[in-house]
Amino acid sequence: MAQYKRFETEMIVRPDDIDMNNHVHNSRYLDYVLFARYDQMTRCYKMPMEDFLQQGWAWVVKTCFIEFKRPLNNAEHIVVRTWIDSFEKADVKVCFQILKKENGKLSAEGYFVNTMISTASGRAESIPKKIIDHYIQYTE
Amino acid sequence: MAQYKRFETEMIVRPDDIDMNNHVHNSRYLDYVLFARYDQMTRCYKMPMEDFLQQGWAWVVKTCFIEFKRPLNNAEHIVVRTWIDSFEKADVKVCFQILKKENGKLSAEGYFVNTMISTASGRAESIPKKIIDHYIQYTE
Amino acid sequence: MAQYKRFETEMIVRPDDIDMNNHVHNSRYLDYVLFARYDQMTRCYKMPMEDFLQQGWAWVVKTCFIEFKRPLNNAEHIVVRTWIDSFEKADVKVCFQILKKENGKLSAEGYFVNTMISTASGRAESIPKKIIDHYIQYTE
Amino acid sequence: MAQYKRFETEMIVRPDDIDMNNHVHNSRYLDYVLFARYDQMTRCYKMPMEDFLQQGWAWVVKTCFIEFKRPLNNAEHIVVRTWIDSFEKADVKVCFQILKKENGKLSAEGYFVNTMISTASGRAESIPKKIIDHYIQYTE
Repeated sequence: MAQYKRFETEMIVRPDDIDMNNHVHNSRYLDYVLFARYDQMTRCYKMPMEDFLQQGWAWVVKTCFIEFKRPLNNAEHIVVRTWIDSFEKADVKVCFQILKKENGKLSAEGYFVNTMISTASGRAESIPKKIIDHYIQYTE
Repeated sequence: MAQYKRFETEMIVRPDDIDMNNHVHNSRYLDYVLFARYDQMTRCYKMPMEDFLQQGWAWVVKTCFIEFKRPLNNAEHIVVRTWIDSFEKADVKVCFQILKKENGKLSAEGYFVNTMISTASGRAESIPKKIIDHYIQYTE
Repeated sequence: MAQYKRFETEMIVRPDDIDMNNHVHNSRYLDYVLFARYDQMTRCYKMPMEDFLQQGWAWVVKTCFIEFKRPLNNAEHIVVRTWIDSFEKADVKVCFQILKKENGKLSAEGYFVNTMISTASGRAESIPKKIIDHYIQYTE
Repeated sequence: MAQYKRFETEMIVRPDDIDMNNHVHNSRYLDYVLFARYDQMTRCYKMPMEDFLQQGWAWVVKTCFIEFKRPLNNAEHIVVRTWIDSFEKADVKVCFQILKKENGKLSAEGYFVNTMISTASGRAESIPKKIIDHYIQYTE
């Protein structure tokens, strides 16, 4: 069975991401994944967030799971790899890995389940077939 | 079977917590729980983080799961409720709920699994019986 | 000559405000002042930000100056004192002090110059006399 | 009279930098400058922060002034230009400009005054001649 393509975004850790333990603060990992998704929606899927908003849709986070493996340091170069796992009604499950660029070792991995909502009603809405068809182009 | 006590910490949403969607940014929920744990370790469990550090131990986050239910607004008063679920070797599972103070409705819930490490070795270390015994005082 | 009243807002430092130097990160001081202003606009001046927005106005930061005196620690209780210094055309200069609650010592002080803009045009607009008159009630 | 060289660091705005006004939050500008300084200390001046720490010195922010000119958007490419203005006893004044990469327009500018401290005593210490001589290599 075809699997959705994995895309990668490179980032550099900023000093303001570092916390009292001298490593990247836990919650900033979620921000890194969000940055990668925005980047990949535009650059890889050719369907930026603005396209969704213009059609009256938005994405909200339903659940998030993350497993921390190795700490990240100030100024470290990282790779954020994300891919679509599956669609179900209004939900899409997106998996991610955050890797140390220097050696490819895993720093964290997990997933987000995002729900499509109508910006007019604020309610969840089944993801239209044309959206899913668009993503199906990016399988391997 | 006895269950660990649930403690509550009150907070107020800050403007810098709000993101482009006009609600509290997803990753800030993790920061709220961290604030509540520090507060409750000192105020409720009478065993502040400093006590662990002085004994050569620290806690690192192993995994985190969060489910978002209702958005939070700027200046909103919230209650962060946390409790110990269980201990296993070097790990403790801590559950949390973030509630809207005004009406008690649930904004988010989830859990953290934290691992005790030796600050000298950086390695996981079984949580000592005396620590677990300390927490057992706070059951109901 | 009458001076504008000074108002105070209490806050508690959060763990996510702490940086690699184990003190509150420099940029978070600006966030503390912003929190205090939102609080004081509502609670002290009885003219919350929403009132401005409803009338088609918003405030943007024009300049900011801050002098750091003493570091702040995790979980520290602080007092953010702010007051209006002066109005000039579209600008208001607001001064602030951030104090350690325990001993009243100064942690930082400075000012913001904020410009009133029309949300429709995005352009600066002279602060209306009725707004200035409202603030003049709060002099001493 | 010779002037200190101006160095540039490129960055991309992250979604978590955006606030309720749909632009980069004011305090994040300070974080951008901090990132650029760390980068330039290593890459341009060949004297990374670690070198200072190893010699028992650290830098703390004494004052900061910033003037906001044009808002920045999510995913925007920016250039952070910084340069040394002058040394005085324990202080160095560093100026900065934040530019929109697309058109070179100024988004913000200002300065930081940083004080060198001894990490042992925590007290300000006159910047040693050898440090100043090092920076003098980077004049134009």
